[in-house]
Amino acid sequence: MRATVIHAPHDIRVEDVPDPVVQQPTDVVVRVLRACICGSDLWAYRGESARKPGQRIGHEFLGIVEQAGSDVTGFRAGDLVVAPFVWSDGTCAFCADGLHTSCPQGGFWGSEGSDGGQGEAVRVPFADGTLVKLPAEAASDDRLLTALLALSDVLGTGHHAAVGAGVKPGSTVAVVGDGAVGLCGVMAAKRLGADRIIALGRHTARTDIARAFGATDVVAARGEEAVAAVRELTGGAGAHSVIEAVGTEQSMRTAFGIARDGGAVGYVGVPHGSGTGLDLGDMFNRNVALRGGVAPVRAYIPELLPDVLDGTIDPSPVFDLAVGLDEVPAGYKAMDERTALKVLVKP
Amino acid sequence: MRATVIHAPHDIRVEDVPDPVVQQPTDVVVRVLRACICGSDLWAYRGESARKPGQRIGHEFLGIVEQAGSDVTGFRAGDLVVAPFVWSDGTCAFCADGLHTSCPQGGFWGSEGSDGGQGEAVRVPFADGTLVKLPAEAASDDRLLTALLALSDVLGTGHHAAVGAGVKPGSTVAVVGDGAVGLCGVMAAKRLGADRIIALGRHTARTDIARAFGATDVVAARGEEAVAAVRELTGGAGAHSVIEAVGTEQSMRTAFGIARDGGAVGYVGVPHGSGTGLDLGDMFNRNVALRGGVAPVRAYIPELLPDVLDGTIDPSPVFDLAVGLDEVPAGYKAMDERTALKVLVKP
Repeated sequence: MRATVIHAPHDIRVEDVPDPVVQQPTDVVVRVLRACICGSDLWAYRGESARKPGQRIGHEFLGIVEQAGSDVTGFRAGDLVVAPFVWSDGTCAFCADGLHTSCPQGGFWGSEGSDGGQGEAVRVPFADGTLVKLPAEAASDDRLLTALLALSDVLGTGHHAAVGAGVKPGSTVAVVGDGAVGLCGVMAAKRLGADRIIALGRHTARTDIARAFGATDVVAARGEEAVAAVRELTGGAGAHSVIEAVGTEQSMRTAFGIARDGGAVGYVGVPHGSGTGLDLGDMFNRNVALRGGVAPVRAYIPELLPDVLDGTIDPSPVFDLAVGLDEVPAGYKAMDERTALKVLVKP
Repeated sequence: MRATVIHAPHDIRVEDVPDPVVQQPTDVVVRVLRACICGSDLWAYRGESARKPGQRIGHEFLGIVEQAGSDVTGFRAGDLVVAPFVWSDGTCAFCADGLHTSCPQGGFWGSEGSDGGQGEAVRVPFADGTLVKLPAEAASDDRLLTALLALSDVLGTGHHAAVGAGVKPGSTVAVVGDGAVGLCGVMAAKRLGADRIIALGRHTARTDIARAFGATDVVAARGEEAVAAVRELTGGAGAHSVIEAVGTEQSMRTAFGIARDGGAVGYVGVPHGSGTGLDLGDMFNRNVALRGGVAPVRAYIPELLPDVLDGTIDPSPVFDLAVGLDEVPAGYKAMDERTALKVLVKP
């Protein structure tokens, strides 16, 4: 089959690789209908996260089960399924707690020895603990299929940030980061009943989506200027719930700078860079909590799926460029250069 | 009157100072019956927290209202009252939220221009928003009076850590710090229904109190050895709720080291030292939250007071040395040298 392989920073290729097959009785093989490129894939693309030459890449996909191992009970050939961005056994204490990302048998698509999502097919370990079935009729609805793909990462990750930030009905929420995750954070905050949602962003194409997703205010500034603007919008106090969807020192500083005393920063931006951006003394004096991390999206799919299916929420607008598999390298380039927000891949 | 004054590191004196009087119509003057020395007072004593020569010190006290300003409605001369370690106006949005420590008109006893708790009397600003009335009959019950004094800081601070750590009925909790706050954290965790409470400490006099307060296990180790021991006690997973009651880099590292993935560290140890001890990448990968800070004990007194009054909880054993006002300097020395756990002051 054809799949995306990363050889070095900025060297992404689509190549012939061995066809995946069921290796364990708990595996299935999924033929990919939709995949996409994640902002966090760019850390590998830019060389900020190490990859071995030849590793697969891509961790978001949905598709059709092609082959199922003998121990798989929940899926059979022909089922339409979505995969969260980590696989998990579904049977351990962490999976039972809804923290599938800490499953001792879990792993990330594209890690060494595993398939990546940006390919024609994927071997899925622990299929019963990992995949979620989708209605078969969604396969023929292009818009819905795209929206459902967001369940594999960005929508659940935005939701995780909103949960970590403690969004409640009536909350005032601020969102740092105008990428697809930040925009899904806006959507999640709205869905959880936030009354006021302040999106930080300077790209009108993105802030327009933020407004469509529920942002009531847009702050087109960064750093100290953004902090001052959010404080002014909130009577000086800041937002009780802040979603941090970038992962840099600067974005973390901004997030705490706009957080209200007693509030929380829900962070899902993969931390990168040398420092944390955290001022523990300030967090302590103002009782601002930090909660979040890698999102256990598998746990959230059952809650979010019905709202996507019935159209209550539609995250599909975060995908603003669609490419075929052979154009994936161009897709990375477009996201790296910020000419695309999030790239959809149709193998 | 006589009051404790800090002139320089290790130079604590009890001196004649002006008698406090009502200055604002919202003030009262409280004659101190019981005060005490806090672990955080030692940072000033050791020169790790800056003080201007001549500042008062001490932030925990209870006593009898001696004089009340004309606008004070909740208290009159003769009332027995306890003061939380910050004053607060009781009328702002933060006080309404239960975050009295962020009250814009609030302040700490012993800050410049204010009285400290370790003296014969204290001028209390915003008395209606600050003080809590106690039953008059408690004044004649020495043991109860000592227990009630814990409401001014250590008990509410231990409770804040337990709340921050997310202690729930059935929880497994680990407590880093065997000082009075850590021990009150044990008590608070037990009160909130924790099933298993692992206290870290190497001083049997202290861990005996921890056991009396509800600890089910004691780990007499520090650092990596303590992490390994707690992990072994918890089947490798760690404690879902960790109370951090020290405030050093090392204690924070230990706290996160023994926290279960998906859990939380509730921190109330005043951060000191150059670094934070936080590994943001590890927190992110394991979804361990950090929540806490300076405890809004005023908010907790109404909840905790009935349990102290009826004997459901009795924090008085944390006070293991009682001194008169003139012996306060010796009390600091005893706590600094760890020959006393927490020093009670009877002016």
